[in-house]
Amino acid sequence: VSLSYIRQGEQGLARRQRLVKSLLSSRRLPEAGWDEATIEMFIRDCSAMDSNNFLDNVGVGEREGRLACPLVARRHYGLAHGIGRSGDVAAEQPKAAGSSLLAALTAALAGDALRIAGMTGVGPVTVLPLATGMSLTLTLLALRVAEADGGAGLPAADPDVVVWSRVDQKTCLKAVTAAGLTPHVVQLRRQGDQLVTDMEALAAALQHYGRRRVLAVVTTTSCFAPRAPDDVVGVARLCAGAGVPHVVNNAYGVQARDTCRLLTSAWNKGRVDAVVQSTDKNFMVPVGGSLVAAPAGRPGLVAAVNGTYPGRAAVAAHLDLLMTLLHWGAAGWRKVLHQREEVLPYLRQQLTALAARHGERLLDTPGNPISTALTLDTLAGTSAAAPDVTFFGSMLWQRCVSGTRVVAPGKTQSVGGVAFRNYGSHVEEPFPHTYMTAAAALGTTREDVDELVVRLDKCFTEFKKKCGGV
Amino acid sequence: VSLSYIRQGEQGLARRQRLVKSLLSSRRLPEAGWDEATIEMFIRDCSAMDSNNFLDNVGVGEREGRLACPLVARRHYGLAHGIGRSGDVAAEQPKAAGSSLLAALTAALAGDALRIAGMTGVGPVTVLPLATGMSLTLTLLALRVAEADGGAGLPAADPDVVVWSRVDQKTCLKAVTAAGLTPHVVQLRRQGDQLVTDMEALAAALQHYGRRRVLAVVTTTSCFAPRAPDDVVGVARLCAGAGVPHVVNNAYGVQARDTCRLLTSAWNKGRVDAVVQSTDKNFMVPVGGSLVAAPAGRPGLVAAVNGTYPGRAAVAAHLDLLMTLLHWGAAGWRKVLHQREEVLPYLRQQLTALAARHGERLLDTPGNPISTALTLDTLAGTSAAAPDVTFFGSMLWQRCVSGTRVVAPGKTQSVGGVAFRNYGSHVEEPFPHTYMTAAAALGTTREDVDELVVRLDKCFTEFKKKCGGV
Amino acid sequence: VSLSYIRQGEQGLARRQRLVKSLLSSRRLPEAGWDEATIEMFIRDCSAMDSNNFLDNVGVGEREGRLACPLVARRHYGLAHGIGRSGDVAAEQPKAAGSSLLAALTAALAGDALRIAGMTGVGPVTVLPLATGMSLTLTLLALRVAEADGGAGLPAADPDVVVWSRVDQKTCLKAVTAAGLTPHVVQLRRQGDQLVTDMEALAAALQHYGRRRVLAVVTTTSCFAPRAPDDVVGVARLCAGAGVPHVVNNAYGVQARDTCRLLTSAWNKGRVDAVVQSTDKNFMVPVGGSLVAAPAGRPGLVAAVNGTYPGRAAVAAHLDLLMTLLHWGAAGWRKVLHQREEVLPYLRQQLTALAARHGERLLDTPGNPISTALTLDTLAGTSAAAPDVTFFGSMLWQRCVSGTRVVAPGKTQSVGGVAFRNYGSHVEEPFPHTYMTAAAALGTTREDVDELVVRLDKCFTEFKKKCGGV
Amino acid sequence: VSLSYIRQGEQGLARRQRLVKSLLSSRRLPEAGWDEATIEMFIRDCSAMDSNNFLDNVGVGEREGRLACPLVARRHYGLAHGIGRSGDVAAEQPKAAGSSLLAALTAALAGDALRIAGMTGVGPVTVLPLATGMSLTLTLLALRVAEADGGAGLPAADPDVVVWSRVDQKTCLKAVTAAGLTPHVVQLRRQGDQLVTDMEALAAALQHYGRRRVLAVVTTTSCFAPRAPDDVVGVARLCAGAGVPHVVNNAYGVQARDTCRLLTSAWNKGRVDAVVQSTDKNFMVPVGGSLVAAPAGRPGLVAAVNGTYPGRAAVAAHLDLLMTLLHWGAAGWRKVLHQREEVLPYLRQQLTALAARHGERLLDTPGNPISTALTLDTLAGTSAAAPDVTFFGSMLWQRCVSGTRVVAPGKTQSVGGVAFRNYGSHVEEPFPHTYMTAAAALGTTREDVDELVVRLDKCFTEFKKKCGGV
Repeated sequence: VSLSYIRQGEQGLARRQRLVKSLLSSRRLPEAGWDEATIEMFIRDCSAMDSNNFLDNVGVGEREGRLACPLVARRHYGLAHGIGRSGDVAAEQPKAAGSSLLAALTAALAGDALRIAGMTGVGPVTVLPLATGMSLTLTLLALRVAEADGGAGLPAADPDVVVWSRVDQKTCLKAVTAAGLTPHVVQLRRQGDQLVTDMEALAAALQHYGRRRVLAVVTTTSCFAPRAPDDVVGVARLCAGAGVPHVVNNAYGVQARDTCRLLTSAWNKGRVDAVVQSTDKNFMVPVGGSLVAAPAGRPGLVAAVNGTYPGRAAVAAHLDLLMTLLHWGAAGWRKVLHQREEVLPYLRQQLTALAARHGERLLDTPGNPISTALTLDTLAGTSAAAPDVTFFGSMLWQRCVSGTRVVAPGKTQSVGGVAFRNYGSHVEEPFPHTYMTAAAALGTTREDVDELVVRLDKCFTEFKKKCGGV
Repeated sequence: VSLSYIRQGEQGLARRQRLVKSLLSSRRLPEAGWDEATIEMFIRDCSAMDSNNFLDNVGVGEREGRLACPLVARRHYGLAHGIGRSGDVAAEQPKAAGSSLLAALTAALAGDALRIAGMTGVGPVTVLPLATGMSLTLTLLALRVAEADGGAGLPAADPDVVVWSRVDQKTCLKAVTAAGLTPHVVQLRRQGDQLVTDMEALAAALQHYGRRRVLAVVTTTSCFAPRAPDDVVGVARLCAGAGVPHVVNNAYGVQARDTCRLLTSAWNKGRVDAVVQSTDKNFMVPVGGSLVAAPAGRPGLVAAVNGTYPGRAAVAAHLDLLMTLLHWGAAGWRKVLHQREEVLPYLRQQLTALAARHGERLLDTPGNPISTALTLDTLAGTSAAAPDVTFFGSMLWQRCVSGTRVVAPGKTQSVGGVAFRNYGSHVEEPFPHTYMTAAAALGTTREDVDELVVRLDKCFTEFKKKCGGV
Repeated sequence: VSLSYIRQGEQGLARRQRLVKSLLSSRRLPEAGWDEATIEMFIRDCSAMDSNNFLDNVGVGEREGRLACPLVARRHYGLAHGIGRSGDVAAEQPKAAGSSLLAALTAALAGDALRIAGMTGVGPVTVLPLATGMSLTLTLLALRVAEADGGAGLPAADPDVVVWSRVDQKTCLKAVTAAGLTPHVVQLRRQGDQLVTDMEALAAALQHYGRRRVLAVVTTTSCFAPRAPDDVVGVARLCAGAGVPHVVNNAYGVQARDTCRLLTSAWNKGRVDAVVQSTDKNFMVPVGGSLVAAPAGRPGLVAAVNGTYPGRAAVAAHLDLLMTLLHWGAAGWRKVLHQREEVLPYLRQQLTALAARHGERLLDTPGNPISTALTLDTLAGTSAAAPDVTFFGSMLWQRCVSGTRVVAPGKTQSVGGVAFRNYGSHVEEPFPHTYMTAAAALGTTREDVDELVVRLDKCFTEFKKKCGGV
Repeated sequence: VSLSYIRQGEQGLARRQRLVKSLLSSRRLPEAGWDEATIEMFIRDCSAMDSNNFLDNVGVGEREGRLACPLVARRHYGLAHGIGRSGDVAAEQPKAAGSSLLAALTAALAGDALRIAGMTGVGPVTVLPLATGMSLTLTLLALRVAEADGGAGLPAADPDVVVWSRVDQKTCLKAVTAAGLTPHVVQLRRQGDQLVTDMEALAAALQHYGRRRVLAVVTTTSCFAPRAPDDVVGVARLCAGAGVPHVVNNAYGVQARDTCRLLTSAWNKGRVDAVVQSTDKNFMVPVGGSLVAAPAGRPGLVAAVNGTYPGRAAVAAHLDLLMTLLHWGAAGWRKVLHQREEVLPYLRQQLTALAARHGERLLDTPGNPISTALTLDTLAGTSAAAPDVTFFGSMLWQRCVSGTRVVAPGKTQSVGGVAFRNYGSHVEEPFPHTYMTAAAALGTTREDVDELVVRLDKCFTEFKKKCGGV
């Protein structure tokens, strides 16, 4: 083959290699997303840098990254050694230079993505192959180990209480009890339709237990309407004053610009030790990863979490996040964020119109930038013969609508040893409406909203027919 | 296309579908391994049963299993929802019937694989997308929650001590401290070349703290020679007598028939609450999964672990294990186990011959069915000009030999707040030899051993040359 | 796993299977494109119907569809037996019911796609794993065999001449000579800027050789401007009158609605025996396949072509076309066709503006619905020091613009034993302009046009600088 | 990530790149096969060298290698432009430097593989994306064009007859008639159980038509027993003497060392112009490719074939062959050849034993190194009620035995316009036995043979039961 053709071809190849080099030197999201060929070229090259893939390797340890099933090897690009060392999950794994590089890079790009999303001033970020709940547990365990150290001259403390602003999602509370800690539940306040943080009760709790017993305050920023994100700025101020750590469960809050702004404000004005977020909910990857981030001004907890993690971990969650971020690039990431921001008002508007048609209304929850709640009062308990309103949820599910939740007052449930009244509605006092929630989450499209409304209309009509009405 | 051809073709297709049906009804490893096409057909069909893959799905929740990057979707066969619910990681996930099916099946097949490996009488098994260390932590946390419950009429206890037979591998100790627990280290006894469990010291420790303070005894069955597996039968008897839980770190012990026999004996004769093992080390999948198993006679802890896990988890580790087990079938699994059993005597024999050539010897460690130790006494401290003996390890690594460990006495190290003398050699008193370890682990071949010996020979010669010798 | 979840999951699976059933019963393009999972599910199921993939197969023939390299097996979904039998390439292959089904279906969908594109009245279509040129050769060979048969009572003829309207693209002429036939070249006429079929010369040629010596007239409908598509309607009428077969080289004409209309008109008003088109150029698949179609009113040649093909053939080209057509669906196919139709006026408009900036003009070629020609007269031979104008093409190529052709008069070339003056410009008399061509082909976007203009502008400026101008 | 780890990793990567460099400089099969990662790395790098994959490419031609369906793009590694130019299918395609490189390399490695298989003295080899039959047609067409040229001073000839030694496989004869040529059939001679070339009849045919009318003699080396390979050495001598071209249909003969030896001897002692062989039958790739090879001493026809091919062609067949050859390496290729050589005596021995059990015998066909024939005389026409003996073949097929052929005398069939008596048995006079064939082809294992015998035994028993016997 003639040299001039080959040379032009090699320029094509070199163009891709320059993308990789630029990524490695900048450690920031490329502006434009990469095509699949470049993404895979990069991952395969990293994989070739792991010792299990050395052509001459002779492994005589207890763990040599051998993969028995070719299908498994393929789907993981031959990456087998995982990441981290027994001492630190973010440490380089000597047998796996390539995986270590991938993992470090993913953490760097994840930080970049958080900044682009609006979390100005974010400091170190670690990617964990644990979903949000387990990551919260690990964060609290790391905090406990850190606090137990005491530090220079101070007697070691062993704080065992977590002050927790109620959110009726089991995982978050279980993350506290799984860590062997005692949750102190701070109930919410109702403010119009919205449920908000009860700052006074929270302050009282801190005072009651004192700094020595409170390991942390845990707040939540992403939740189902009509609950609003916690007042993280207020809590941050309170924690700063009380000298108490503050961990934020920001499960799917990265996708909301308002929430990112709140977090930035919180660590600027008060104390935030860690913000934990899911990778699947915010970055459209499979369930199983999370990011623990700390503000640049109080970076310590991230390293403590990494150091607490016992042993190696899977690299799969890193890989999924890395591939997705490279696929998007900064431009693509901004675009999906922007599309989401635009879907929320559309969802509200379409649901408001639908509500009007059926004698319902959309709850007024301006503080919640993701979730909405639509009253179902006309369906609830209309007659003895009427089905339970929760059946409305089943009807939607039967029509392939997933993700809605129908909430009716009255259910008492014990979670992690704590009894909650009206579980599901976030409040002890019965909420004055039966309602269903629907969210404008990352990836939701206007077509989704349109189709939701079509199916909702049908379900309203049918449900009422079953009730003997219409 | 004529009907008779189509019919014959459909029989071919039906033959594969029968394999799937048979698997689902038996929930046991098929005798013969499946080909790739059948494995993938099954996984893809399961994937089509998850709601995120329904062709008509409209998702309006905060987590709808959307995947942004096609490469990520492909490598996970479109499985995005993970497994479990907030209450229990082994519970069915309503949005993901297919993933739930895969996960339940994997746990069943994993139990079957343990039984085939020799763990007779094993009861429930859970697959966790956590490597061994983190699984141990979770197991201890679950135990703590369970113990805290107290039970009928008993005052709640809060035991905080873990009695732990020393093994110089950081992860295991960190698994204890990460859980917020206090390790009590029981040193080993030397018996000839071997290091074995000090049963008397262990019994004394139990007596000293008492049942109310000891959360568990943690033993280890797979370790580097010259340490032997702990006397799990003796410890099981002791724990039964003392009413104290017993957790076994069986990281890579599944692959050794002798170790499986020991475990079976332990739970037949005494108390074992959980046995934790790595999926990557025992089943040749990527790092990141583990199995927590309990004996059929004391099954409770597995459900407790599942119930303690906060939130959903990734399905990737299950999938890798499932694909590998189906790829092998029972016959293939028995075959790789058998091959491993045969490589150990070969490794010992070849290293003995090599040792003779270089004035060294193989330590006599009959109790360790996986790892061997070769003395390096002729290389250690032979002259002032000689390089440190650990450099021998670097030389091997430079020649693409991975997995050996060179151990010389004298290093003191703090792990999880505990100081250890002679860290790496498992004993406080200096071990009388400098040595290196090599293992006959699953997947090691005779060719690996041959090549190891060739490179070892070269390194011996070169190292001595550097020392000014030979 | 509970039955209700499984049932919902199975509905998801059944939904996809219904798509397949509907496709098999209708044998028409589905309206909406399929997702990747459904496409692959279908192909894999077909593959499982081929005997080489039967789990119990014992092959003791000389050709058993064994695949040695797993990567090869994977990329072909295990399809190994190819299609056809020694007697007929479109016949069912008994060892490969699945491949036979795929192939038959592809031909049916391809016919549907041609109809959607505008080829009303198209009859049988065969997909050949041969690019256009080789397919033309095979079509001519089939015609020769068919003509040689003579038919009822007639003496067998052995016509050896192909009357061919000149188009300066080597493949088409080589397709004639490769078949062992003698081309008679009919030169074009210039009409304004356009080059069109010389109907009188063509009629004269037919008369000169007579029906017994002329195997076929071969016309071309897709070509570089300023040549226009041949007057296929006129030729069809002529052939009908003369009783001479008419084969149309419609290499990339499917994508142009005007061309499809011409063809329809041609077979409605006269004689067309076969229309040959490329799959890669019209359907965006890799090079290597073509469609031979015949009008419903004169369907015979397609079966003759299939019957002439000696032996089996690869199924790869069918598979690529099938996957692409299912990926699009009828809606997607209409959409890409529509987008192309809209790009042409945009290209013309942008090039006209650019021409004005540089003292050139776009040739007036209203008959060519795909290709355009821009004069380069200001660059040609402006000074002794000036580079040859063809260097302008190299400059574009260096800037990653592919697909343009710079044509200057003066080159004489022999193709297939025939000498052509001014080869490249389709005419013996020097064309009055030097020009370059650019096409609005399937898949070309407005962004491509914009970027083309940017780079063209730069090249004009630079070229003139090199000439010592500007 | 620390530099020392990265460096070690980069060595691992460099090791693979050295394999590629070495391949490109030697253009010979690597001794050891490559692993999948290296094979794919190489192909992907080549793909990145094709202009359709340039990140900045702007395509404005009629054929720009765009791929609409991501699944199609993936399975072809983004290779879309095919190979060759309109003038020559082996010429470099300027738009596709990578594909051109792949294609040239494949041809070189294929030649190497033929030499390893025993074809000493083989010269140029071209890989065609055409199965054997179509390649034979193209070879004959190229020969016709070449002969038509006449050459220095000679009047142009137009030979139209192909002298062809009968083999009852339709494709071969159709390859002649498809080319528009007239076959002259030379019947075989029976010699014991074997059917062999009738050299006298062949010589007589040559004399009858004379050099001016005979385009070529076509012989066949791989065929079903009891036919033996043609006496290619004798025919080569005859052709050399008569000045007539000699084309060998060596469809699946590469796999037999004896056949390769015969070919070598033929071109050493006489005239061979081209040897055509299938890639799927000899190299275990999907149906659809072939190799046309010429002896080093008479290399011209390969270039003529390449130059005759009109237009570009698919690269898929090259790619499959390349991947398979790299997967094997020279060592792997020798190994599969060796295994095949060993299966033949095993097959003969097992069938002989089976024949003894059922009162049949294996025909004595020492000259056929691949195919065997087992008499079925006890099944044929035993009673009026007995099913036709060909039903025995259906019984085997129903039991998933593929590739056997049951041959009974008496069938007359017309192929390509020629009538054959006793079609299927290669002879006009009824062959004295009814028989079935079975082959020891590349990839057939001893297990296949064992299973064949089991099923044959069952079919014998069952067939006789149906006949009212046993």
